[in-house]
Amino acid sequence: MPPILTSRRLVYANSKWRAYADDLRGDGTSVKGYLVVEPVHAGPGMVTGVAVLGEADGRFALLHNHRHPLGQRSWEMVKGFIDEGENPADAARRELTEETGLVCGPEDLVPLGSFTPEGATMAARGLLFLARRCRPDIAATPGAAPGKDGADEIEIGLGATTLFDLGTVERMADNSEIEDAATLIGIYRALAWLKRECRETTPNTSS
Amino acid sequence: MPPILTSRRLVYANSKWRAYADDLRGDGTSVKGYLVVEPVHAGPGMVTGVAVLGEADGRFALLHNHRHPLGQRSWEMVKGFIDEGENPADAARRELTEETGLVCGPEDLVPLGSFTPEGATMAARGLLFLARRCRPDIAATPGAAPGKDGADEIEIGLGATTLFDLGTVERMADNSEIEDAATLIGIYRALAWLKRECRETTPNTSS
Repeated sequence: MPPILTSRRLVYANSKWRAYADDLRGDGTSVKGYLVVEPVHAGPGMVTGVAVLGEADGRFALLHNHRHPLGQRSWEMVKGFIDEGENPADAARRELTEETGLVCGPEDLVPLGSFTPEGATMAARGLLFLARRCRPDIAATPGAAPGKDGADEIEIGLGATTLFDLGTVERMADNSEIEDAATLIGIYRALAWLKRECRETTPNTSS
Repeated sequence: MPPILTSRRLVYANSKWRAYADDLRGDGTSVKGYLVVEPVHAGPGMVTGVAVLGEADGRFALLHNHRHPLGQRSWEMVKGFIDEGENPADAARRELTEETGLVCGPEDLVPLGSFTPEGATMAARGLLFLARRCRPDIAATPGAAPGKDGADEIEIGLGATTLFDLGTVERMADNSEIEDAATLIGIYRALAWLKRECRETTPNTSS
């Protein structure tokens, strides 16, 4: 039997998140003030954001973002919230261009499934994508995300883009040089997808 | 330049988490009321918890935990907070036995690096482990975690353990049947470790 929510209190809200203190009653136990962090805007299935790994000429785009809660920089795929009414695939391509200046055609966007960053605290689910065969868009200004009122707004902590080859990305993921959960899952699923794709499209010459 | 913290306000606290609203000032921009969720107990390097993938006779232990924020069950590795002054490896073996009844010797615990579940909001880092060659402990009562006062306390939402073979775990991770971030990263790194180990310890018979 899942626990029953007996009371909910909003303890904080900003433009992105709401925090609740929930009282729960389960089989033979109860919890008071369980913290739940919930995005203000979420689509069906609690889908909140997208994370997209851009690939250009066999190299992979990572940003070195400063994350205030961690007090340090973190190697990450492009990530962003989905705008209200926006298709997740469109959000992934939009965020990719806004944050890196790379453009990916809709036919080159590979869905890599979903994940929940921290189901014990966050009511949020992300969708992952691999963006293949990206090209730089000379008109785009990386790091400048248009604000709600149309004015440009520099995102706090957003770092510059670096392109890494496959072996380097794999090594950085395996030795915890990359620690960001969304980025690690995206990389591991992208590597598995690329290996499958490569096997299926390469003629077998071993026998 | 990383953004500067100009003001911090505690907006919520329970026994596990503290939530803060931070004002930040960065290069040419500022943010008011940035939400930071921080564990009450964290070790050096913001290490908060462990996640451990138990392996017994080539099968892997996953729990089907109910996660209140998600409103559904989630396939997960054993996870837990590190007690004050406790070694992360000891915490991993303790949590494994508490939640699954499986026992793993210290020599069979393989460290699989670190990850940050959600660096944009959470000041937390987890350590991952593979626990090889586990054996059931007939004295242990899975699901019964001793409380601070020595009394048994059933953890809310904690599900029963199921053992899956390697191929099934790999398929569940790739098709998003497993969505939990810590669990996915743990599985992908464990699979990579096991494949390397297997290659290194198996005589090459192909030539």
